[in-house]
Amino acid sequence: MKVTIKDIAKECGVSVATVSLAFSDKPSRISKTTKAYVLEVAERMHYQPNRVAVNLATKQSKWIGMIINDLRNTHISSLFMAIDQELQPKGYSLICHVLSDDNSNEQQIIKNLAVSSLAGIIWGKPYTFPENEDSKFMQRFIERMDLPIATMDDFGFKCPGIDVRFDYYKAGYMATRHLIENGHTRIGCLTGPVNYKVTQERLKGYKDALDEQGIAFNDEFVYNGDYTMQSGSEALSYLLGQRTTAVFSFNDEMAFGLYQSARQYRISIPDDLSIIGCDNVPFTNVLEVPLSTVHVPIDEMGKVMGQELIKTIEDKNNVKRKKVLYKPQLLLRGSTNKCSN
Amino acid sequence: MKVTIKDIAKECGVSVATVSLAFSDKPSRISKTTKAYVLEVAERMHYQPNRVAVNLATKQSKWIGMIINDLRNTHISSLFMAIDQELQPKGYSLICHVLSDDNSNEQQIIKNLAVSSLAGIIWGKPYTFPENEDSKFMQRFIERMDLPIATMDDFGFKCPGIDVRFDYYKAGYMATRHLIENGHTRIGCLTGPVNYKVTQERLKGYKDALDEQGIAFNDEFVYNGDYTMQSGSEALSYLLGQRTTAVFSFNDEMAFGLYQSARQYRISIPDDLSIIGCDNVPFTNVLEVPLSTVHVPIDEMGKVMGQELIKTIEDKNNVKRKKVLYKPQLLLRGSTNKCSN
Repeated sequence: MKVTIKDIAKECGVSVATVSLAFSDKPSRISKTTKAYVLEVAERMHYQPNRVAVNLATKQSKWIGMIINDLRNTHISSLFMAIDQELQPKGYSLICHVLSDDNSNEQQIIKNLAVSSLAGIIWGKPYTFPENEDSKFMQRFIERMDLPIATMDDFGFKCPGIDVRFDYYKAGYMATRHLIENGHTRIGCLTGPVNYKVTQERLKGYKDALDEQGIAFNDEFVYNGDYTMQSGSEALSYLLGQRTTAVFSFNDEMAFGLYQSARQYRISIPDDLSIIGCDNVPFTNVLEVPLSTVHVPIDEMGKVMGQELIKTIEDKNNVKRKKVLYKPQLLLRGSTNKCSN
Repeated sequence: MKVTIKDIAKECGVSVATVSLAFSDKPSRISKTTKAYVLEVAERMHYQPNRVAVNLATKQSKWIGMIINDLRNTHISSLFMAIDQELQPKGYSLICHVLSDDNSNEQQIIKNLAVSSLAGIIWGKPYTFPENEDSKFMQRFIERMDLPIATMDDFGFKCPGIDVRFDYYKAGYMATRHLIENGHTRIGCLTGPVNYKVTQERLKGYKDALDEQGIAFNDEFVYNGDYTMQSGSEALSYLLGQRTTAVFSFNDEMAFGLYQSARQYRISIPDDLSIIGCDNVPFTNVLEVPLSTVHVPIDEMGKVMGQELIKTIEDKNNVKRKKVLYKPQLLLRGSTNKCSN
């Protein structure tokens, strides 16, 4: 059955007139975001109209649509605050959309974004590998908005803005190398969700550091967590069962979970188990045995994202996409020690 | 010199036409928020027009303006997440405004709010005592918007919505009483900013618990912090200098600062110093000596704020203001002990 303009209007929850305007080249009262949403839905439904240029002149808003991870992780809330501290004094406000790790609320966020009239986008979440057409939809929708975008990873966007990246490969390599240098060979690996590119980068760094020292990779030493304290807490008994003497936790939050279980099981850190994290959140120094970790300059990264986004919005001639890569720094504290076995 | 409509337009950064529309009773293209802003500025400048009813029919937006504290405190980010988890599935988006403790960015936030077309307001920050006319401005501006409002404290708003409160007086009383029952008489008090009503409530609870047991209040045992880890860290040497044997920290974040300094100075918790916090953030259980604290049901409070705000927005007949008070619960862990002196 042929898809009509009416079907698209129904699917999008907008009027037929709005759909018509979305297909038109002329400036109109509908926002860029609504236009982008209608065009994406039309494509998904195989309506295949001519792709029209999405560059209508709209009144400049001061809202920035933000897509971000769960803010209860202080690494994420620090990013939010660093960005907001740049935007707020310039009159910009963040419309905040928390996207879950499994992307299950993606369609809802797209709907919420579609009704906004935005000046720019902050994609404050790392790249996740799309699993199917549905999961490519959001990225295409965002790109089609043709707004300035600042991202935390390289999404391959062509629109003006900035990609701010951290060298997670190097971070994984350095953390693992440090444990090897302390004589550890049975090194556990506590990962985040594997659909994150930044997870795979850390994993590759871990593997390459082992390989370089002639230590065979053992996938039984890998526990797939989800970047929450809870998953770190659950990982400990598994990793001890594998007789690992050290663990590289892909973030500090999961390392805190390891600490929590270690206290319950009376496991001594670092004597029974060395632990190194990644992020360097403020709590790392509160612990009785402060956590060794890899410093991620999240405040600086957020600041640059905010500053560059404003520059791109306010200078229409600034159409190039910038890329910045931040380097890791190892912070050695009390939680890593020589292997005693 | 007489204030003209032009002066008001200039001060607000809007056109003279917009100011005229703001003074008019008729439905117009300007938003409730702009109208409220113009009217407040006019009043502040002693223009004193007739107060007009602010109940223009505007197209229903799905944006909720949120005013909240620094999200790097996990107690605050938990509140944010609990509210967002109610709003997002219903198509509402949070426009997030982080207000600093000293309210120094209040005027900027008012400007940012004024250009938004909102469906409702979340005031996710406790009440602070206004110090002067300037600091009363925001509260009057918000009230004049005449939108549904959910608040974290009792601001005396008349508009429909909900006040969600926690019994901080009782929390302060219970925490202090627990320390007294363990034989402590030199009990330090680590407060937040005193312009917060919730700070004064905790302080009164502390004082009343002492008074009830015939222990004289000593204002040298009080250290004024600012609810950050940093201020807790700075407080320790002062409180030890006063030979206090126990401390009631008004939130967990500052208690973590005490832990951090205690480790540096080799002070043993609880043997040298008993510590009790307030909030019960997830990190309290990660510590080698888990923190005794008062549980604040922040997830439940955020959930109710979100649910009731939506109800008020969607049911125009629901014009009453609700009030809910949550009771504290003492959680005793390892950081409090019998007084050994």
